[in-house]
Amino acid sequence: MSIRENLAELCSEPLHASLAAASMESMNLLNNISGTYPEAISFAAGRPYEGFFDTDQLHEYLNVFTDYLRRERGMTDQQVSRTLFQYGDTKGVIGELIARNLAVDEGIDADPRSVVVTVGFQEALFLVLRALRADDRDALLAPSPTYVGLTGAALLTDLPVIPVPSGERGPDLAELVGQLRAARDAGRRVRACYVTPDFANPVGVSMTVVDRHRLLEIAASERLLLLEDNPYGLFHRTPDRRPPTLKSLDTEGRVVYLGSFAKSGVAGARVGFAVADQPMGDGLFADELSKIKSMLTVNTSPIAQAVIGGKLIANDFSLVAANTRETAVYHSNLAQVLDGLAKRFREGDGVSWNEPDGGFFVVVTVPFTVDDAFLDYAGREHGVLFTPMHHFFGAGTESCQLRLSISTLTPERIEEGLDRLADAVTARLPRSTPTTAGSTAPGGFGTGALS
Amino acid sequence: MSIRENLAELCSEPLHASLAAASMESMNLLNNISGTYPEAISFAAGRPYEGFFDTDQLHEYLNVFTDYLRRERGMTDQQVSRTLFQYGDTKGVIGELIARNLAVDEGIDADPRSVVVTVGFQEALFLVLRALRADDRDALLAPSPTYVGLTGAALLTDLPVIPVPSGERGPDLAELVGQLRAARDAGRRVRACYVTPDFANPVGVSMTVVDRHRLLEIAASERLLLLEDNPYGLFHRTPDRRPPTLKSLDTEGRVVYLGSFAKSGVAGARVGFAVADQPMGDGLFADELSKIKSMLTVNTSPIAQAVIGGKLIANDFSLVAANTRETAVYHSNLAQVLDGLAKRFREGDGVSWNEPDGGFFVVVTVPFTVDDAFLDYAGREHGVLFTPMHHFFGAGTESCQLRLSISTLTPERIEEGLDRLADAVTARLPRSTPTTAGSTAPGGFGTGALS
Repeated sequence: MSIRENLAELCSEPLHASLAAASMESMNLLNNISGTYPEAISFAAGRPYEGFFDTDQLHEYLNVFTDYLRRERGMTDQQVSRTLFQYGDTKGVIGELIARNLAVDEGIDADPRSVVVTVGFQEALFLVLRALRADDRDALLAPSPTYVGLTGAALLTDLPVIPVPSGERGPDLAELVGQLRAARDAGRRVRACYVTPDFANPVGVSMTVVDRHRLLEIAASERLLLLEDNPYGLFHRTPDRRPPTLKSLDTEGRVVYLGSFAKSGVAGARVGFAVADQPMGDGLFADELSKIKSMLTVNTSPIAQAVIGGKLIANDFSLVAANTRETAVYHSNLAQVLDGLAKRFREGDGVSWNEPDGGFFVVVTVPFTVDDAFLDYAGREHGVLFTPMHHFFGAGTESCQLRLSISTLTPERIEEGLDRLADAVTARLPRSTPTTAGSTAPGGFGTGALS
Repeated sequence: MSIRENLAELCSEPLHASLAAASMESMNLLNNISGTYPEAISFAAGRPYEGFFDTDQLHEYLNVFTDYLRRERGMTDQQVSRTLFQYGDTKGVIGELIARNLAVDEGIDADPRSVVVTVGFQEALFLVLRALRADDRDALLAPSPTYVGLTGAALLTDLPVIPVPSGERGPDLAELVGQLRAARDAGRRVRACYVTPDFANPVGVSMTVVDRHRLLEIAASERLLLLEDNPYGLFHRTPDRRPPTLKSLDTEGRVVYLGSFAKSGVAGARVGFAVADQPMGDGLFADELSKIKSMLTVNTSPIAQAVIGGKLIANDFSLVAANTRETAVYHSNLAQVLDGLAKRFREGDGVSWNEPDGGFFVVVTVPFTVDDAFLDYAGREHGVLFTPMHHFFGAGTESCQLRLSISTLTPERIEEGLDRLADAVTARLPRSTPTTAGSTAPGGFGTGALS
């Protein structure tokens, strides 16, 4: 049989439905667009700042971790090398270090036995969804718009996502309760609600403290598990005044905390974790997640764990302290982008944006549909990239919004990038009047704009 | 609500069916038994030899890889640190190095674009099964007995496994065709057949070259995809005389090659890969696997990839050459175990074993059922551990066999361990006559013993 016939044959059998879903294509499209326009200034990638990367740090973190294994765990050199080179415990080797970090930075009291170290946040999310999805009745609540990786993990586990409209203060809790009850009335078993209380991707905003308490009350009264995602929370302008995480307020085991070190530790280590302290059988929910992990990735690379463990130890377990410089960059960039938008658009343009007080993202609303064709146009004609918001709403939706990520650019690139963005947007404005620098009134941005 | 009430409530909702499967418990039981009897001599773990582990090598491999990025890929220091610290390409950064390794060691001509670098073999397997499992009609063929991780990954994707009886020359090909046709007649869509042609876990034996060609012919005539797993193949006594991998003989894109560096590279890096060169749509099957990976683990840690990449470069892309010392240890250990069994059991005991000519495993047949209670007894009373073969046959089966892994022990521990094993087995022999050293006749071990 020729390769061509073979091709025809392989294509004749369907693959898993996730592979035909628009959200899976989103990730590819968004990854490829920077390759298509490598010279463009990209506000697209929600990646950590690269200015402080230093390869020597990897060696240092590894050394700090191996010293810790010898000193605090009393290991011989042979045991140290076995820890790094050999297969390891499914739950990981840095659960205790992570628990200390959560105590120091988040006021979360986590039993190390409840911690499963994972290949990034994404694997932790997959493990939880795989565990919870038992049959066709199951469903998950999640804010809309939401992180593309949530949509993708749900697709991989055949778990339908029920959208909860989400605006400038996070998910609308009345809508959440309404959707939950409607789903249950329709025979759905709602297994959990995914939520990012702090600087959520893609909208960039945070839930109020009142809403956090209210959400926990809803979880208790409605018997709902919450999956808390918190990659951006520690990049707060005044770290001491960060609102509490849901997990730190959780006295009933209602919250599974899904952690990431991609922004606060080293993205390239691909280390995240779940804190799943819900009692279950003779053990904890973490033990069930660990069983799934043993058949998915066996264990997270102990070398990668050593890099994160070393960084935690080297910074006295505070990633807030470890990220002082990065946090300053993110706030400076955010302020510059907000100021820059105000300088480049004027009242009456129909252009508005929200004003998060931290995190990586700003959402800009324009008076026309932001589709992938407009992204392509902006990349090709103006050398600027961003993320059309429709990708975060799921298949078949339209949106007049785009997301700007402020995390990786220098001040010079931000200025030039905003100039290019203003040109691209202005060219599409209905009356196409040239904008002038110096306008000050920012556009409004209400909850309604996102629902 | 109290924690206790909460517990009762969470337990009232079912979790994914895989979590109740016996095979998922197998992995936990087998992992925990060494913790229960830490002083026991363990023939249980199929792990690489630890005698040559050296933490300094990690630093060296990282340095070799970063030198390569600078020298061969022309990267600046900033690009090098970005490669290691930042999120990376979903398919990985060492696909080209892996392709060079496959050319040197296996005679496989792999397009680097067809390589997806994964979190170990296990993730590669999961990606393929997730892609292929579209609906309830789908099923997978696999040898019986088989690797526990195959059973687990199939459970995670709700993919039924149809067992193909497998004996001293690997899967019975007539049975394979029979099972395939019977399944198709019953309305099943058989998506692939999993196979480990070389020193397969758990039986330790290899397919003949004739059978390899025959299996490829069957794949062509029956339109069947083959998933080739090859973690042990390179530990051949005479590497130049290794039988060809299926992939190296595959001219029609019938084989997805699933690679592992856990035994040949560094287990702690947790790096494996899939070679999936089947054309599909505008791309390759590898691109579909990459889409799933982007929602599962995003990308394999580039730091972990750098460790493997550095080892490949440092050894001129030959892991056969890199493992000369390890291969010698495995062959010496295997010979010692086979000799040691012959010395400790005599004809008439009803104890027999197979005689693989490489790899990590020997299967011993005894005249009584080897259940987990016997393993526990052997660990507690005799200080020796092994793997009851019933774990490789699936739920509800009984077996009179146990698997010995020869890979991690020293000569002294092997002698002592075999003494203990002989004591444990002899205590259970029907006539319980004491064995004496010096008996030479090994027991027979035919295909029938495994079917």
